[in-house]
Amino acid sequence: MNILKGNAIVGQSGGPTAAINATLSGVIRGALAHSDAIGKIYGMRNGIEGFLEERIIDLSAVCSDEHSLATLELTPAAALGSCRKKLKSVEEDAETYERLLSLFKKYDIRYFFYIGGNDSMDTVLKLSRFMEDHEYEMRVIGVPKTVDNDLAATDHTPGFGSAAKYVATTIKEIRRDVNVYNLKAVTIVEIMGRDAGWLTAASALPSITGDGPDLIYLPEVTFDPEKFIDDVKASMEKNPAVLVAISEGIRLTDGEYVGASARAVDAFGHKALSGAGKVLENLVKNCIGCKARSIELNLPQRCAAHLASLTDIQESVGVGRAAVDSAISGKTAQMMTINRKFGAEYFTYYDSADIAGIANAVRSVPLDFVNDTMNGVSDECISYLLPLIRGEVSPIYEDGLPAHIKF
Amino acid sequence: MNILKGNAIVGQSGGPTAAINATLSGVIRGALAHSDAIGKIYGMRNGIEGFLEERIIDLSAVCSDEHSLATLELTPAAALGSCRKKLKSVEEDAETYERLLSLFKKYDIRYFFYIGGNDSMDTVLKLSRFMEDHEYEMRVIGVPKTVDNDLAATDHTPGFGSAAKYVATTIKEIRRDVNVYNLKAVTIVEIMGRDAGWLTAASALPSITGDGPDLIYLPEVTFDPEKFIDDVKASMEKNPAVLVAISEGIRLTDGEYVGASARAVDAFGHKALSGAGKVLENLVKNCIGCKARSIELNLPQRCAAHLASLTDIQESVGVGRAAVDSAISGKTAQMMTINRKFGAEYFTYYDSADIAGIANAVRSVPLDFVNDTMNGVSDECISYLLPLIRGEVSPIYEDGLPAHIKF
Repeated sequence: MNILKGNAIVGQSGGPTAAINATLSGVIRGALAHSDAIGKIYGMRNGIEGFLEERIIDLSAVCSDEHSLATLELTPAAALGSCRKKLKSVEEDAETYERLLSLFKKYDIRYFFYIGGNDSMDTVLKLSRFMEDHEYEMRVIGVPKTVDNDLAATDHTPGFGSAAKYVATTIKEIRRDVNVYNLKAVTIVEIMGRDAGWLTAASALPSITGDGPDLIYLPEVTFDPEKFIDDVKASMEKNPAVLVAISEGIRLTDGEYVGASARAVDAFGHKALSGAGKVLENLVKNCIGCKARSIELNLPQRCAAHLASLTDIQESVGVGRAAVDSAISGKTAQMMTINRKFGAEYFTYYDSADIAGIANAVRSVPLDFVNDTMNGVSDECISYLLPLIRGEVSPIYEDGLPAHIKF
Repeated sequence: MNILKGNAIVGQSGGPTAAINATLSGVIRGALAHSDAIGKIYGMRNGIEGFLEERIIDLSAVCSDEHSLATLELTPAAALGSCRKKLKSVEEDAETYERLLSLFKKYDIRYFFYIGGNDSMDTVLKLSRFMEDHEYEMRVIGVPKTVDNDLAATDHTPGFGSAAKYVATTIKEIRRDVNVYNLKAVTIVEIMGRDAGWLTAASALPSITGDGPDLIYLPEVTFDPEKFIDDVKASMEKNPAVLVAISEGIRLTDGEYVGASARAVDAFGHKALSGAGKVLENLVKNCIGCKARSIELNLPQRCAAHLASLTDIQESVGVGRAAVDSAISGKTAQMMTINRKFGAEYFTYYDSADIAGIANAVRSVPLDFVNDTMNGVSDECISYLLPLIRGEVSPIYEDGLPAHIKF
């Protein structure tokens, strides 16, 4: 086999997760294992944005020993920094692409790894096409991450399992807390996931021991406020402390977000949501007249590395390593995938898929994962989710706090 | 010594914590160790409220083996259920006291342990006086708990160390997350503590590794919105991602809560707060014009038992055991205390103090624990707090989730 020789660069983009650094570690581990092909391993600060400003570091020098890599794997959020830059098309912005090409040549970069979500895969797609058109041989591989679990072509996404474990554990602990008073009260927990309800669905996992929410509303199901109030009243008949899990992205019949009042727009043009929980809290107070409170789980969902899923961390490292193997074997314009072999035991393997079919596609929770009354999840959904949160990590604690690495 | 023989009863009251069940376990362990004096160990469901309805369980039967006790110690929230009932004075409500006395006689209860905060100590005080006046020999002991750490006479309160560890860890993880973008943005984290800033002060602990908030505002310091905006601007000069920790109870010069807009009153007549973070988020958006977000840590602060402080859990068990020892030795109308011996090593011992001087008193953060610029804490404060969060517990996980006990 004709081995492509040169340096590698790796970047992180989009919203961070508790496992995105585990994938970074996997890429470093993979590159170190292929020292016959890969020389230096550069890291971009703040993704493609920092790279364009030549803000790069030599990871081979600062993070290649076992202690650093192990600490990196349990450090939450993007250790290299992240960005929200989406590349324009070549027609719109040829200059940026020319600049990138000249930088690749300057640093002799032949391997490009980009760890990110939907928008980052779009960058991988555009970049790989441009390099191919300009006959610069470079292997461009996307490695998925997102707590939303909404990327196409992969069974699940690195980062999701840890976020799901955080959500499920926190719901179980909140269940204990809200059950202590013998009073009518409704607690609404608002969970991340703009258009896909995977993380909200994970709130159902404590139901295995009878500690799940009484009601769960996913963004895949149109939200009906009247039915919601009826559901809450019915639930209250059984247990006065009602626990509800909702996605931040639940919408009304007309397509409007329930939390639309607090709407803003983020740098990618997505609607940034907050407040669906607060809206429902007030609805309960007005319609039922009992105590109500809302809890937004917020950033800890994506950065609580102390509670990461061991399965997720191991797979996140594994898929990073596999990305290097794929690139070495000649693949490019691919996104790495995690594939599940169905059977009695949970078993996964890594593969890759053509990036063109993945970028900008969203994978929603299928309707057979929703229960018949549209306010909870099915057993099939639980079976899909459960293996992803299994296993606990063992962070190093210093002075009572988890140790992190900083570049 | 003349040993008082009879049964014991234990109850939990007020807001739950991650360690209140550890104290319950300590009381059970203590009672089991004194089987020469104590027969049955009853538990009140929902505190004094449930006891008045004769809702009691025999803890000796359901929770006396090592596995159950160990699981109980890492189960968050009040396993017996809690209440917010505050006893009226004997003059106002003699009937309730007579009813309590008849129940104590019916169940031959000679030992009464009540685990709670300020309001619960008031119950202990009133009850012990009534029983004394009516010549019913009973040992009435209060065992403190509160995430607020605001009880008088004790160096710190069981439950606080675990809440502090949760706050400090979460702040450290959020620091990692907010640092990933190279953009001006302000993140405001709102922390529990109505009148005392202990838990907000604990947000400073990650500063040991440079990962603390840039600014911290305690309720003990009058909040000045103009100075706040100046502080944020100055901080932004150094690092574009500004992280701010505030207490839910910060107040303006006129004594009004910053979060007053969302004010309500809880069952004890306390003002229930929410929204100080949201108010400041909007202030930043209006005055600085950059991205701003607020995060309310909410209930997980008091129920995240998976991240409990080992020091706190061990002391919570210890003080429960010590309560039984004190009662056996003849003490009554006391609240148990944790006392610290100052020296190079952290060392504590248990004692008790007259309940009359404790009930309804609030211990605030002293001003020498605040920094000179009134927007952070002093090194002395860090030295006080740090030992309380040290050590990690090892919960049993089943199907990826921490195991809890339910009665």
